[in-house]
Amino acid sequence: MRLTTFGESHGRAVGGILEGLPAGLEIDFGFVEQELKRRNPSSVPYATPRHEPDEVEFLSGIFEGKSLGMPIAFVVYNKEHAPEEYENLKNIFRASHADYGYWAKYGIRDYRGGGRASARETVSRVVGGALAKLLLRNSGISVLSYVVSLCGISCETRDYDYLEQSVLNIPDAATERKVMEKLKTVSAGKDSCGGVIETVCRNVPAGLGEPVFDKLEACLAKAVLSIPAVKGIEFGDGFGFAHLYGSNAYDEFVVKNGKVTTAQNHNGGIIGGISTGNEIIFRTVFKPVSTIPQKRKTVTVDNKETIYIPSGRHDVTFLPRATVIVESMTALVLADMLLRNRIAKLPDR
Amino acid sequence: MRLTTFGESHGRAVGGILEGLPAGLEIDFGFVEQELKRRNPSSVPYATPRHEPDEVEFLSGIFEGKSLGMPIAFVVYNKEHAPEEYENLKNIFRASHADYGYWAKYGIRDYRGGGRASARETVSRVVGGALAKLLLRNSGISVLSYVVSLCGISCETRDYDYLEQSVLNIPDAATERKVMEKLKTVSAGKDSCGGVIETVCRNVPAGLGEPVFDKLEACLAKAVLSIPAVKGIEFGDGFGFAHLYGSNAYDEFVVKNGKVTTAQNHNGGIIGGISTGNEIIFRTVFKPVSTIPQKRKTVTVDNKETIYIPSGRHDVTFLPRATVIVESMTALVLADMLLRNRIAKLPDR
Amino acid sequence: MRLTTFGESHGRAVGGILEGLPAGLEIDFGFVEQELKRRNPSSVPYATPRHEPDEVEFLSGIFEGKSLGMPIAFVVYNKEHAPEEYENLKNIFRASHADYGYWAKYGIRDYRGGGRASARETVSRVVGGALAKLLLRNSGISVLSYVVSLCGISCETRDYDYLEQSVLNIPDAATERKVMEKLKTVSAGKDSCGGVIETVCRNVPAGLGEPVFDKLEACLAKAVLSIPAVKGIEFGDGFGFAHLYGSNAYDEFVVKNGKVTTAQNHNGGIIGGISTGNEIIFRTVFKPVSTIPQKRKTVTVDNKETIYIPSGRHDVTFLPRATVIVESMTALVLADMLLRNRIAKLPDR
Amino acid sequence: MRLTTFGESHGRAVGGILEGLPAGLEIDFGFVEQELKRRNPSSVPYATPRHEPDEVEFLSGIFEGKSLGMPIAFVVYNKEHAPEEYENLKNIFRASHADYGYWAKYGIRDYRGGGRASARETVSRVVGGALAKLLLRNSGISVLSYVVSLCGISCETRDYDYLEQSVLNIPDAATERKVMEKLKTVSAGKDSCGGVIETVCRNVPAGLGEPVFDKLEACLAKAVLSIPAVKGIEFGDGFGFAHLYGSNAYDEFVVKNGKVTTAQNHNGGIIGGISTGNEIIFRTVFKPVSTIPQKRKTVTVDNKETIYIPSGRHDVTFLPRATVIVESMTALVLADMLLRNRIAKLPDR
Repeated sequence: MRLTTFGESHGRAVGGILEGLPAGLEIDFGFVEQELKRRNPSSVPYATPRHEPDEVEFLSGIFEGKSLGMPIAFVVYNKEHAPEEYENLKNIFRASHADYGYWAKYGIRDYRGGGRASARETVSRVVGGALAKLLLRNSGISVLSYVVSLCGISCETRDYDYLEQSVLNIPDAATERKVMEKLKTVSAGKDSCGGVIETVCRNVPAGLGEPVFDKLEACLAKAVLSIPAVKGIEFGDGFGFAHLYGSNAYDEFVVKNGKVTTAQNHNGGIIGGISTGNEIIFRTVFKPVSTIPQKRKTVTVDNKETIYIPSGRHDVTFLPRATVIVESMTALVLADMLLRNRIAKLPDR
Repeated sequence: MRLTTFGESHGRAVGGILEGLPAGLEIDFGFVEQELKRRNPSSVPYATPRHEPDEVEFLSGIFEGKSLGMPIAFVVYNKEHAPEEYENLKNIFRASHADYGYWAKYGIRDYRGGGRASARETVSRVVGGALAKLLLRNSGISVLSYVVSLCGISCETRDYDYLEQSVLNIPDAATERKVMEKLKTVSAGKDSCGGVIETVCRNVPAGLGEPVFDKLEACLAKAVLSIPAVKGIEFGDGFGFAHLYGSNAYDEFVVKNGKVTTAQNHNGGIIGGISTGNEIIFRTVFKPVSTIPQKRKTVTVDNKETIYIPSGRHDVTFLPRATVIVESMTALVLADMLLRNRIAKLPDR
Repeated sequence: MRLTTFGESHGRAVGGILEGLPAGLEIDFGFVEQELKRRNPSSVPYATPRHEPDEVEFLSGIFEGKSLGMPIAFVVYNKEHAPEEYENLKNIFRASHADYGYWAKYGIRDYRGGGRASARETVSRVVGGALAKLLLRNSGISVLSYVVSLCGISCETRDYDYLEQSVLNIPDAATERKVMEKLKTVSAGKDSCGGVIETVCRNVPAGLGEPVFDKLEACLAKAVLSIPAVKGIEFGDGFGFAHLYGSNAYDEFVVKNGKVTTAQNHNGGIIGGISTGNEIIFRTVFKPVSTIPQKRKTVTVDNKETIYIPSGRHDVTFLPRATVIVESMTALVLADMLLRNRIAKLPDR
Repeated sequence: MRLTTFGESHGRAVGGILEGLPAGLEIDFGFVEQELKRRNPSSVPYATPRHEPDEVEFLSGIFEGKSLGMPIAFVVYNKEHAPEEYENLKNIFRASHADYGYWAKYGIRDYRGGGRASARETVSRVVGGALAKLLLRNSGISVLSYVVSLCGISCETRDYDYLEQSVLNIPDAATERKVMEKLKTVSAGKDSCGGVIETVCRNVPAGLGEPVFDKLEACLAKAVLSIPAVKGIEFGDGFGFAHLYGSNAYDEFVVKNGKVTTAQNHNGGIIGGISTGNEIIFRTVFKPVSTIPQKRKTVTVDNKETIYIPSGRHDVTFLPRATVIVESMTALVLADMLLRNRIAKLPDR
């Protein structure tokens, strides 16, 4: 299964082609729309005020409500066009942005709103991810991401029931209240903040992942670190392993309800790069939004140093709506691995 | 550039094929040997006493000391054959090992020493990585990995001069002494410990990495998380970003010696997935070695719970010799990206 | 460079994404339109009367008239919707069509006009091919395809000057007249006919193609045999080699205008899978259009034999307009090989 | 399933890695050896007198006689080393050989015996193909190639019983006698000749092949045209389609023994790029061996024209032993397609 995407922030459209989705899968269009809504800035507080409804149009690969086995193309036209406000970015590379890297690499760039580097491209990931989730759902597998740390405040418990009503996608009412308070200050200070998203995958069968270069962790890490602003990932005990010993960091295989699983889960459901049958757990760190209205040094396309101030509107944090993006990338990897697993051994064995 | 590898721990050999290395590169065979020696257990204290010299034989792709542009195949025959000591593992899945995952996936496994899941396969990564390093060296790029945390002790400074003489690949004399002391205790307690390796890449030109799914961080993360026992990675400030704000976590572009770079380096040399020209910095966490001689619960191939004790010899830590493996995977990614970059724009621009 | 396409004959749209086109290439939109027109049924006699203008809309990857190095997405909406006339095909598999294969493979199919198997998908190839041609043109390389055999009549000479005015893309006035006469009869008999297209690539530098599995002939063959109705390909003397000897089928290297080339060209410009610097020449055979209004036996989705008569309109021959499709696929391969060639050796050599 | 190969004619070894063979397949080593023997020059008359036994050594991926699902590496060491006789080729590019193309591409070449361009690399294809055949055999699929035209003499009938005893792999006793007579003359004249190999695949289920770029014909064509000296391929009626009409070139679906198949087989078992369930039939043309001991013009590495005479030993024809190579490449494609087909639709459909 392969997702190919396209689109610049202020180009004509964003979209993509999903290849390899097996034929015969019922496409729940309402679900896709709902997933897109979770990513949309209008869905959470303290997000950028770019208000576009993100209407997805499917162009191929679906017939009478089911996947044909053919490439599924989809497009979301960009409705907001504000190129004039970007004219002043034509000749400078914004601090902490991809602008300079693109220039060094391509010698040309679409400077309007970050072009291809804009987080707008994640629209395509959410559509592809929603389709992948439908395939996983068909096998009973679920993927859930939520915010566990925001503007320096971490949540200690995981109240999944509360999560459903949380506006910031934080699974703990008390933590959410504290974060909400803090965000008010950050927003007032024209600042932004980073945080951590945790992801749990349930009912993943043992055996997903490949032995060496395509270990499940490796593929999930690649998928998740390709999301804008992500700067790290850890599985299970993650960086905590640096303080553990072999004697207190092991996972023993046991039989539960007639099924093999692990008694502990230090490894986050993946050992030797292959799923164990236990829950897959990992955490992803996002850096603070770089575009905040504060004075910055930078260089121009003529390699001269200069000063600029990013214009007004910005996200104080995008973590609450990034949860669906992490879920999407995770779902795409799991769905692909599920398919690859079907040809790992002779059918009759 | 693509490395394909093969080999089980106690099979006939391990090795691989490196495709896509440009023609005309001088192959420094002494360098390859030296890199392999860095990975070899005999090179560091507290490592497994498997003593094989790891003699690499190149089978193709090199002519009169230079790369031909053809696939470079290499093989390292396994000299130590100790299958009998593994007979008792035939019917059980060791705790914290890939055994069960392989069984669930393939319905068959080579139970001798972990088979394909053994860290023995990293021999092939080091050979491939050494060739990639030769290509990078040709462009002035260097990759350096070292241990910054071991058995719970972290080093605060980076004394690169000391590193050359450090036996544990720790860039700080005082920290190394403390770690050495601690390892004695851990070894006596038949235990093992985890830690963190840091990697610095110097002279990487701006422009490496691809905009969306093949961001430089994404590709490095995949490469590094495919190394056995790695459970997390973070770039630049990494998980520290969770406690930072947009106002204190930015990188401003400046001109230094006529070259664009960043004044700060919170992002570890990569912004928007593309190298900025500044140093690339990331950290990788390794879990403690799982095979320690302590009693464990586990299940048999018949899904029955049982108890076993891993046999005697084991690594107390493999981090000091894992540094060359992290360097190798990093070098393979950078070399590949360097080549891809050559076709990013029209030649005359 | 990779082209990913999508679209069913009577779905919402056809289109694709071209990845890997280097940045900085000027996009000649008029040329793309003109290429599409060459494929359009309205451009040649005896073609299917499906009259759609094929308006291509570019959605991404182009900025101020130049390629950005980003994925270039394009879409051509299907304007003609005639699903009702296909209702009678819902339950049968047409003779000589892909219908049954799709059913066996996917268990579901879009039966309207062949769905994904319709030659309508070649619209996307022509757009991608036109972009590839622009890259080749930038390096002075040209690709030209023309009809050398139609309804059993072959042309012996190659009058490239005449070709420009030929309505059937036949490079010989006398042959074209004879063919035109014959087509009248074939059309009257509600029949269709096959033929052969020849392709010549000029100014291709020596060195394109890879040594073993990606030989230039292998890649061209794959590309061309993926075009609907193509059933064979031959390079240079092709099947004529079966009657030749080593003593009369060789190509000697000579120096012409200071450049190495071959004195003869039995091999059609490719030796050992790699271009020699001489003209690349190959021929492609197309089977007659299968959909003709004649009674046929076939089976239903319930595996029952039955009889049906395809409905009225059909192409008598699509070869004249298939020339641009062959050119497109050829251009895509050459452009990709040109880029791969840039990283075959160290830059300074 | 992917085969990666390596090796130069007079380098240390040839070999490869086969990835993606499902776990649990019994490996019939005797069969692999027997296939290699069919390719070996000692097995047929009028072949090059390079006499090496081609002993294959499997290095990984097989355990207790069965595939592990891991990469299967294999190596065949080159035993004959005759580099001195190639010294005179160091500075010239042989006519009709890849020498010049490699030089233009890589700026360096292994001139001994053609290096990577030598047909010696086909050893690796035969080993990989033998493993693929074992997988196909497990599904009841067979692949058979035989010579249908040699030195200008074609065989009209297909006597598969006779084929087993034919020394030239010609399925007709009378034709073989005539060919044998002719070869004597060709050999005496220090000449070589081309010919055609036909391939028949039986019991291939309907549904193999992908709709657009990976049509079954496209993939088979690529695989077969990557074999040294192949210059063309045609499926079913092939170039004969140029003289046929829609009214006499169709394949009607019928039910035979409760299974859908086609009444005719003009298309050679593939329609719309997907197998129909009927026999797959195609023909491959080989050019005459280029290395014959006759005077030739050529150029030197300094771009000067010169004359040379290839040294003595050569194949008069390699077609009889090329049959196993065509079978191998065909088997690799079919095996891969068989696996891809397993994930084309939801499992329960």
